[in-house]
Amino acid sequence: MDRAEQIKAHVNQMKEDGKYHEQIRISEDATGYSYEALFKPYISSALTEVWVEDPYIRLTHQLYNFLRFCEMLLKASCKVKKIHLITSQDEADSSQQTSALAELEESLSAQGVTLDVQYSSTIHDREIRFDSGWIIKIGRGLDYFKRPKGRFSIGYCDYDLRQCQETTVDIFHTKHTKTL
Amino acid sequence: MDRAEQIKAHVNQMKEDGKYHEQIRISEDATGYSYEALFKPYISSALTEVWVEDPYIRLTHQLYNFLRFCEMLLKASCKVKKIHLITSQDEADSSQQTSALAELEESLSAQGVTLDVQYSSTIHDREIRFDSGWIIKIGRGLDYFKRPKGRFSIGYCDYDLRQCQETTVDIFHTKHTKTL
Repeated sequence: MDRAEQIKAHVNQMKEDGKYHEQIRISEDATGYSYEALFKPYISSALTEVWVEDPYIRLTHQLYNFLRFCEMLLKASCKVKKIHLITSQDEADSSQQTSALAELEESLSAQGVTLDVQYSSTIHDREIRFDSGWIIKIGRGLDYFKRPKGRFSIGYCDYDLRQCQETTVDIFHTKHTKTL
Repeated sequence: MDRAEQIKAHVNQMKEDGKYHEQIRISEDATGYSYEALFKPYISSALTEVWVEDPYIRLTHQLYNFLRFCEMLLKASCKVKKIHLITSQDEADSSQQTSALAELEESLSAQGVTLDVQYSSTIHDREIRFDSGWIIKIGRGLDYFKRPKGRFSIGYCDYDLRQCQETTVDIFHTKHTKTL
């Protein structure tokens, strides 16, 4: 069993036991935390709809983070049909944000996936939810990677080789979450 | 067994039988041919040194192709220690080519890998050789991907989702290649 399979087996057992909260602490300068590495254990064939709440999907590198997250979903062993993005609008200049997300929407549509973008001026928290029940909260949202040393340096293209900033990932399952 | 493992088992059997030549035909607009998908079956722990002969590693997207190829080697289950690049120099403006390869050399060095760049004005063929004996010839070299529809479209970051141009990949093993 590889790491992803081990975590999946562990997660299934914990779900049976009626309790689940996993915490991953990504340390400063750590590598090996691409979106694929981080999310794969929580993706199953039951996943069809995803919600991404992240106030900062506006700068070029943040728009690419979201594109990579969508690419990861398309390649994963699930049948994702709808992706919701709730973010805040770039007040200084929203033209790149708007056009990039429109281009991505069209591109996803060609793959049979609907992208629904909602702007909110009040959201602050970062949260990713799967309709299979998983809730994944990353302190820094999708933007936990360090800038690489240069644009032709190792880790520029492959996020598994990119150094991270310190952040904590909390993973819950709605089945075992009480809303107060 | 996944596809890579199946090919590996098949390859090992063919090697035992004393004959091996595989041909992969990548058809126009096909997807699923990232460097990882293409090269993984031929990478083993025996691999430590790689030679890339490709006359066109000079434009921005070609330099990124080579960076991605190096990233793939770093992540693969091998202990690559030396990568040789034999390419032709950009006669119009070699400054970006030189500085990009110098940056990559420094970046690889930090990972314990030596990059050796040689310029040749006469090479034409594209060939990738592993010191484990494999020779992989791709008609178009590393540059067999189509330009994506836009820079925020699916497939821009993930090469498995990027459409390809038609090209043929021929794979040989030195053990079963006669030099005439």
